[in-house]
Amino acid sequence: MARTLKIAAAQMGPVHLTSKRLETLSRMIALLQSASSLGAQLVLFPETAFTTFFPRHLIASQEQLDTYFEHNDNLPCAPNTKPLFDEAKKLGIDISVGFAERAEDGKGYNTSVYFSARKGEVIAKYRKVHLPGTKEPFENPDAVNQLEKRYFEPGNLGFKAFRTPDLVEGVAKKGAGEVEAAPGKGDPVMGMMICNDRRWVEGWRIYGMQGVEVVLCGYNTAGFAPDLWGTRKVMTPEEAEKDAVFHHKLVMQGNSYMNSCFSVSAAKAGLEDGKYDLIGGSCITSPEGHVLAEAKGKGDEIVFAEVDLEDCRQGKEKTFDFDRHRRIDQYGPITEQTGVVEPELLG
Amino acid sequence: MARTLKIAAAQMGPVHLTSKRLETLSRMIALLQSASSLGAQLVLFPETAFTTFFPRHLIASQEQLDTYFEHNDNLPCAPNTKPLFDEAKKLGIDISVGFAERAEDGKGYNTSVYFSARKGEVIAKYRKVHLPGTKEPFENPDAVNQLEKRYFEPGNLGFKAFRTPDLVEGVAKKGAGEVEAAPGKGDPVMGMMICNDRRWVEGWRIYGMQGVEVVLCGYNTAGFAPDLWGTRKVMTPEEAEKDAVFHHKLVMQGNSYMNSCFSVSAAKAGLEDGKYDLIGGSCITSPEGHVLAEAKGKGDEIVFAEVDLEDCRQGKEKTFDFDRHRRIDQYGPITEQTGVVEPELLG
Repeated sequence: MARTLKIAAAQMGPVHLTSKRLETLSRMIALLQSASSLGAQLVLFPETAFTTFFPRHLIASQEQLDTYFEHNDNLPCAPNTKPLFDEAKKLGIDISVGFAERAEDGKGYNTSVYFSARKGEVIAKYRKVHLPGTKEPFENPDAVNQLEKRYFEPGNLGFKAFRTPDLVEGVAKKGAGEVEAAPGKGDPVMGMMICNDRRWVEGWRIYGMQGVEVVLCGYNTAGFAPDLWGTRKVMTPEEAEKDAVFHHKLVMQGNSYMNSCFSVSAAKAGLEDGKYDLIGGSCITSPEGHVLAEAKGKGDEIVFAEVDLEDCRQGKEKTFDFDRHRRIDQYGPITEQTGVVEPELLG
Repeated sequence: MARTLKIAAAQMGPVHLTSKRLETLSRMIALLQSASSLGAQLVLFPETAFTTFFPRHLIASQEQLDTYFEHNDNLPCAPNTKPLFDEAKKLGIDISVGFAERAEDGKGYNTSVYFSARKGEVIAKYRKVHLPGTKEPFENPDAVNQLEKRYFEPGNLGFKAFRTPDLVEGVAKKGAGEVEAAPGKGDPVMGMMICNDRRWVEGWRIYGMQGVEVVLCGYNTAGFAPDLWGTRKVMTPEEAEKDAVFHHKLVMQGNSYMNSCFSVSAAKAGLEDGKYDLIGGSCITSPEGHVLAEAKGKGDEIVFAEVDLEDCRQGKEKTFDFDRHRRIDQYGPITEQTGVVEPELLG
C-alpha cells in the first residue's frame, strides 16, 4: 500500500531590511494558498522566512536587531506570525518555517518549527547546529559579512526526528511483506535542518539513524563568495552562482541517497536588501538521490511533488541497512575530535 | 606555489574465474605503462584487481577459494603480484591496488595497499570496513549472490590517512600565506577505501578529519540489482546500470566536496564470468565536487588528470573548517548506536 504525501517547498524571493512584516506575511500566505490549490499537505518555508537574512549586516543597535527576532516561542499565537499559522490550520496544511528565535534567557537561535494543522500546534522545534561565518565582521569593507556566530548560539536540541500524526494513510512495512500495524507507524518520520546544516553529513546521518523519511531544509545561500584565501579559481558572478546551486543540489541529492530519504529544500532567493544575491534552486529529492522537482526562477514560487514514502524502503533495508552494515567500532574520531589531526609522517 | 600531482585510475575490463593470473598481470602492467606515457605519478587499480570478483559465487572448495586470495602480506615479493610492483618501481610510479588478503591467522580481508615507488615498499594498508551483501547465499537461484560477509571479516585497521613521501614538490600552506615549512608537510595526504565504503559518510569524514587530499577507491559494482523487496521501480538493465553509475558518481562527488578532497575511483567493469555485468564510471573528482575526468567505456582504460592539491584549501579553511564549525556535542548517536532507533510517537 502506498503512503502518498504531497509536499511543497515555498521558495521566496527577496525580503528586505525595509520590508514590512505584514507584506511579507501576505506573500507567505499567498504561497500557502497556491500550494493548497495543488493539493499540498505539507509546505516548507525558508530559513528566517519572515525577514531579510539580517546576519549579513553588522547591526549595532540592540533595538533594531530585536525587530528581526521572534520573542515568543509560540509562533501560532504571536502577532507577527499568527496569520500564517491560522491560514495553515484553515487549509489543513502542515507547515515548517524558519525564524530567528530569542529564547527566554536572552540567547538567540536560528530556529525552525513544524506545525501540525490537525493538532493545531507546533509539534517540533529545531535549532541550527552548524552556524557558518564569523563572530567578528571582516576587516575588508568589500567582504560580505556572515555574522550568524555573532547573533546565534549553536543549536542545542540535537537532530531529533519526529512523526507527523495523521498526515498520510497506510502503515509502514518492514522486511518483505511484514506489516507493522502499531498505531502511528504509518505516520511519516520527519527531520528539520537549516541551510548550512545540509553540507554536514552528521545531521543527515543522525536523522537517518531514526529512520527519517523526509528531511526539510530552508536556506539563504549567497550566490557569490569572495575569494578571501586567494586559492579559488576566478569565477564570474554567474559562474559562482551556478557552482553554488550545484553544491546545494549535490548535498541534497547525495545525503538523501545515503540516508534513503526524501528531502525538501526551500530558498529565500534573489537580490536581498538591493544588492546581496541569494541562489534559488529549491528542490525535492528522492531516496535514490534524484531531483523530482525544482524551482524555475528566483522569486516566490511553489515547488511541488507527490511522493510515496514507501520508496525509502529499498535503500533502508538493503544497501543502507544500518544494522547490518555500519561499523561503529571504526568511527571513533567522528565524535572524539572536532578538527583536523594530521597523519603521522611516514619514515 | 602549486602542488601538482598527476593521477590516474586504471579501469579494468572483466577478469574471469578462468582467467590466468599472468594474463591479468600483463594487462595491469600495460595499463601502468600507458599511464606512465601520460606522466602519471600515481595509479589506482580496482578492488580485487588480480582476479574476478569471486564473492558473487558460492565456492564450497577451500582449495579453489584459496586461489583468489593472496597468502603473502608482502605483495611486492609474492610471485603472483611481484611483476606489477617491479614495473611500478621501474617506472617510478606509486600504485594502490586491491586484493583478497588471507591473514596469518587464517582470516580473510578485502584489502588494498599503497606502494611507494621511491621507497620501494608498501607504506600503507587498508581493509574494507563496509562489507555489503550477506553471509549465506540467497535461496532464490536467480539472485546474484554477494558473499563478502562470508569470505571476509570487516576491516579492523580504521581509516588511517598517510602522507606519501616525495611525490609532489612544494609545501602545504595553512591560512592566508602562512607557510608550514616542516619537512614532509608538502607530501600529499592520502586515504584508501574500497567499493561500498564510498557510500558511507563515516569513512570519508574520518579521512577528512586527517586533512585528506586524495581518496583512492577501487570497486566492483553490479550494474543490475534484482528487486528482492518488491518496492523498487521496475527498470530495464540499461536504466539500472545508468542509475548505478549515477549513484557512484554522486557519492564520489558529494563526499569529495563535503571533505574538500580529490578522489580517484577505479572500476573493474564489464561482463565478468560471462554474465555478471559491472559498471564502469571510473572517475577523478575535485574538492569542489566536479568530475575532472571519467572513463569512456567498460574495458581496460586509463583515466587521467593533473591536479593542484592546493585546491583543497578553499574548502578546508572556509566552508568546511572543521575546527570552527563541527559540533561533536550534537553527534553522539553516530558512534553510540549502529542501527535505527525510531523516534517517539507524538501525542
